[in-house]
Amino acid sequence: MKKSLGVGTFALPSPVWVVGTYDAAGKPNLMTAAWGGICNSRPPSIYVSLRKATYSHGNIMARRAYTVSIPSEKYVREADWIGIATGRELDKFATAKLTSVKGSAVDAPYVDEFPVVLECRVKEVFELGLHTQFVGEIMDVKADENVLNAKGAIDIEKVKPIIFTASSGTYHGVGKKLQDAFTTREMKKG
Amino acid sequence: MKKSLGVGTFALPSPVWVVGTYDAAGKPNLMTAAWGGICNSRPPSIYVSLRKATYSHGNIMARRAYTVSIPSEKYVREADWIGIATGRELDKFATAKLTSVKGSAVDAPYVDEFPVVLECRVKEVFELGLHTQFVGEIMDVKADENVLNAKGAIDIEKVKPIIFTASSGTYHGVGKKLQDAFTTREMKKG
Repeated sequence: MKKSLGVGTFALPSPVWVVGTYDAAGKPNLMTAAWGGICNSRPPSIYVSLRKATYSHGNIMARRAYTVSIPSEKYVREADWIGIATGRELDKFATAKLTSVKGSAVDAPYVDEFPVVLECRVKEVFELGLHTQFVGEIMDVKADENVLNAKGAIDIEKVKPIIFTASSGTYHGVGKKLQDAFTTREMKKG
Repeated sequence: MKKSLGVGTFALPSPVWVVGTYDAAGKPNLMTAAWGGICNSRPPSIYVSLRKATYSHGNIMARRAYTVSIPSEKYVREADWIGIATGRELDKFATAKLTSVKGSAVDAPYVDEFPVVLECRVKEVFELGLHTQFVGEIMDVKADENVLNAKGAIDIEKVKPIIFTASSGTYHGVGKKLQDAFTTREMKKG
């Protein structure tokens, strides 16, 4: 018998992604989003959901572009702080000692120190309530060479992304490999 | 200098969620989705993106409801298989030896053996391309008592959800706790 916890955003795991944008003056800004995910395979698309009150929300509306930089666990303090501070008052790149690089495919900056970056062009803007969902077509994916496996694919054990849990307000790392996907062709007869 | 990997759905981490629906005859069905996430806090909302070709897609369109059951890592084979097989041809609950329970808040079934369940009423249907995004308002969250912490919140170390990596096609478990969220009030001066 399961216990009802009522209504809440208690799905898990949630990602920890850092969204990069330029403001009207061209200053690069960052914010941390846990409400994000892949939402379409063709064209490859991702989304992040932001509150209208955030500085980044206005930046995305104006330039129709953003990046998603995926921090390694060693940057967990930076990622947490970026989600608390506001870019209206300070330069988050400078304060967190991170390096802004202009995307090659879209008009938005990414974090050079984070190992994986997705450059996104806004395709759809859905008003869902407190949050606006920005669906972005993925125009390019970039990664540091040292997080790729022998086949040239991104290896999660090398990226070491951060996992957010909304119910408990915690960050975790990635654990051991369980198995390869799409390999369980049949369930054993009991 | 980052390497461009071109265009792909290479974000990480992605979740492994099992979506529960009823078909027109009332047979419960399941499918595994990695394209899912929280997309709004008020009202609390989640989405899953499904291809139109899936049996579950038609079920959701007809009943405007689905559940998200979150499997523990010990059910990784079941979750993988549920993503490969089709409910048109067989009863996935019976074949995988899982127990179907009707949701208390919506007209859709969930997996009793999986520790966390979200019951969702479809609020928006967005056609994004290959995938349809079903935004669901979370009507109830249920969890097994043994995955709750001392404060009654869901503990990811007890749930042990599965993490999917699209680039490498792998499943991983959750690792060690890094820190509490929303605690890094300032970055140290260098």
